[in-house]
Amino acid sequence: MSEKALQYLTDNRERLLQKLYNFLAIPSVSTDSVHNKDIKEAATFLQSYLEEIGFENAKLMETGKHPLVYAEYNEAGPDAPTVLFYGHYDVQPVDPIELWESEPFKPEVRDGRLYARGSSDDKGQVFMHLAVFEAIMKTEGKLPLNVKVCLEGEEEIGSENLYDMLHEKKELFHADFAVISDSGMVAKNQPTILYGLKGFTGIEITVNGPDHDLHSGMYGGAVRNPIMALTQILASMKNTDEVVTVDGFYDGVEPLSEDERTLIKDVPGEDYKEAAGISETASEKGYTPKEHTMARPTFEINGVYGGYQGEGTKTIIPSSATAKITCRLVPGQDPQKIQGLLEDHVKKVAPAGVTVEVKKEKLSAKAYKVEPNHPLIQKAAESYTKAFDKETVYVRMGGSIPVVEWIEDIYNIPIVLLGFGTPDDRLHSPNESFPLDSYDKGMETLVYYWNSINE
Amino acid sequence: MSEKALQYLTDNRERLLQKLYNFLAIPSVSTDSVHNKDIKEAATFLQSYLEEIGFENAKLMETGKHPLVYAEYNEAGPDAPTVLFYGHYDVQPVDPIELWESEPFKPEVRDGRLYARGSSDDKGQVFMHLAVFEAIMKTEGKLPLNVKVCLEGEEEIGSENLYDMLHEKKELFHADFAVISDSGMVAKNQPTILYGLKGFTGIEITVNGPDHDLHSGMYGGAVRNPIMALTQILASMKNTDEVVTVDGFYDGVEPLSEDERTLIKDVPGEDYKEAAGISETASEKGYTPKEHTMARPTFEINGVYGGYQGEGTKTIIPSSATAKITCRLVPGQDPQKIQGLLEDHVKKVAPAGVTVEVKKEKLSAKAYKVEPNHPLIQKAAESYTKAFDKETVYVRMGGSIPVVEWIEDIYNIPIVLLGFGTPDDRLHSPNESFPLDSYDKGMETLVYYWNSINE
Repeated sequence: MSEKALQYLTDNRERLLQKLYNFLAIPSVSTDSVHNKDIKEAATFLQSYLEEIGFENAKLMETGKHPLVYAEYNEAGPDAPTVLFYGHYDVQPVDPIELWESEPFKPEVRDGRLYARGSSDDKGQVFMHLAVFEAIMKTEGKLPLNVKVCLEGEEEIGSENLYDMLHEKKELFHADFAVISDSGMVAKNQPTILYGLKGFTGIEITVNGPDHDLHSGMYGGAVRNPIMALTQILASMKNTDEVVTVDGFYDGVEPLSEDERTLIKDVPGEDYKEAAGISETASEKGYTPKEHTMARPTFEINGVYGGYQGEGTKTIIPSSATAKITCRLVPGQDPQKIQGLLEDHVKKVAPAGVTVEVKKEKLSAKAYKVEPNHPLIQKAAESYTKAFDKETVYVRMGGSIPVVEWIEDIYNIPIVLLGFGTPDDRLHSPNESFPLDSYDKGMETLVYYWNSINE
Repeated sequence: MSEKALQYLTDNRERLLQKLYNFLAIPSVSTDSVHNKDIKEAATFLQSYLEEIGFENAKLMETGKHPLVYAEYNEAGPDAPTVLFYGHYDVQPVDPIELWESEPFKPEVRDGRLYARGSSDDKGQVFMHLAVFEAIMKTEGKLPLNVKVCLEGEEEIGSENLYDMLHEKKELFHADFAVISDSGMVAKNQPTILYGLKGFTGIEITVNGPDHDLHSGMYGGAVRNPIMALTQILASMKNTDEVVTVDGFYDGVEPLSEDERTLIKDVPGEDYKEAAGISETASEKGYTPKEHTMARPTFEINGVYGGYQGEGTKTIIPSSATAKITCRLVPGQDPQKIQGLLEDHVKKVAPAGVTVEVKKEKLSAKAYKVEPNHPLIQKAAESYTKAFDKETVYVRMGGSIPVVEWIEDIYNIPIVLLGFGTPDDRLHSPNESFPLDSYDKGMETLVYYWNSINE
């Protein structure tokens, strides 16, 4: 029964791609409030598409910041299972804009890849799901299962309001299982099921010194330099062996078993050097890059600024300096506890003569791990293999999807992470893209999967 | 004979101040090429004023970047000494602009202080000299000595072309002694003669990692973070005792004698804490803040940037990070040698997995020290004391004036550093200002000084 839907996707490929381009053309950047109206436009696009397909009760739910798009399909009847489909329509900022080869919000296909911010993370994958629902509805007149759609506009800013929303509307979002496509395959066209995700937390450190920028000749030697102090604090948090040197950071982390090391070793890993354009990898002493990335906690400085950044030199002692830090966590680490450890460390090592502020990232997430041999996950794996004609691998990944932890926490239902991205998609970076063959095979996978649910 | 000139300054005070405001209103920022036409306008203002006063051969000398204003006065005759008067009409950038209480280029008087970029460094002090020359010419019909005027437009960017200019035009600029007012008094209305200045050098460090910003979830654990690497490099260059930990940095530095420590101790020092708005000073272990600032080398990070600096968080591993560093040097330290030591250190400690670029600041200067009891310096001290009604103190200061070292190097003539700024002028910072009573008493000092030269 999948053939008709697949034929529909083939026959309507150009029209659907055009529709996707229109969706990607909306600069729905959630970080920056100047894009609020674009966020609204992207949400409205999804609402109308869902109504068009035949979903009921499609609406924008106000969250206080960016709306959540909800819709449901109940025609499969009480005996059919209900799936909660989650995705997000907001995207990362585009800076540094000058590094984009084509405009981030003017989708362009080059060498079989669709270039646009959000093409992979996550607007492209959200669109694939809707197109598949459309194909099945148009060809079968109904979907094989009931669906609840939850499309968020705040994923890239920590899903600020989703957590409360899921708690307050428990009944509305309740389902038998959840499906999320906001992740990737370990290699292009290598069917991949995620059975583990990292948690996430972060802090922002600001070191304040003099109440105004000072002339380095008049005050150098009498005043602590806030940038110097910040670098001394940061350098004390991770050593050149890539080991985090904050007391207690690794407490409770379950050791990596030999079995799991083998499993990770066997995963067809990408070539980090080539993908990142570096001459040498760097990972935690005692672990391979793949082990560290997939199964060990990380500590990254995402941004730093202070003092003069213009052309030439300006001989000042600046009044302050700031660093943004995020950590990816593994099972056994509690995000709030980690924030506390980081804050304590910073306060402890801060030199005299400056004051230090630590701002804690409001939303964090614990790491997540699921049992790979659940039947719903097995069916996903089979559909994957059928579409891509390749055995599915099961991996843990370094990324964090807070909603996964929350859904498990609130509903305790199986979560199927069906990601179609590839390691070269440049998520969060200039020139984000998504391969069109993954787009086609991914939709094929979804058609098989939905039709297999009741078998 | 000084009375007439002083009376003239009193009678014409408002008109001259208005003229100064017009001069300060020109945004002659030399760092940023968008201000090139303003630089030209400021230079032309000075040329016309010099002609107006009665100087000969007033002209803008092209340097390849910003013009140098030259003029001369020879009517004092062959028996009278010739002074080389140096100053600069370019100013520092104004950012962070939002911290200015009044617009940087709209001069405004509040509580007896004139607020404007350049009011103290150095346009205000240059103007005082011209106003004094005007006063003497108008009342005496002639100046008591011959004058060569050298007003530069590139001081805030390292006097890029002045060095060559002074070498190429040895004859043109040759004089019996030099007078420079580009410095300050150790306390408001405390006559101060500088007998020592620090040298200056700098480098810019850029750490390059991945060829594009990376998703910290997909690559964290496999790739060296350029910001982390930069902080590790910087933190290894100075410790929390404010001691520079770069091999050889202190080689050749002459130890601070007990006599000099006493001299420095007796200088009425400013209250660093109050002036900088800090709770605690920080200076090199074994030295007081005053000793470190006046007579020990310093190492400052003037600016740092890398990765995401916007609102919220962006979970990336950035592709690069940069820091701007300048050092103030003391006698015994060679600027080029210091640059080499800094570069060697950076290259040595840079961790694997990143590449490091070190850009050397093109122009540097050695430190300078002069014999305080030279008659021309004694006469300056007496004029100072007479005008401010206070004993003159002799100090070394942390600032650098490259031209001082060059003039000594090329002409080997005494250099009188007659500065009228105060510690609260906020040079190089938002809300730069200059006290109007220092302005008045400073001009009085100059009138006495010029008239004392032939006594």
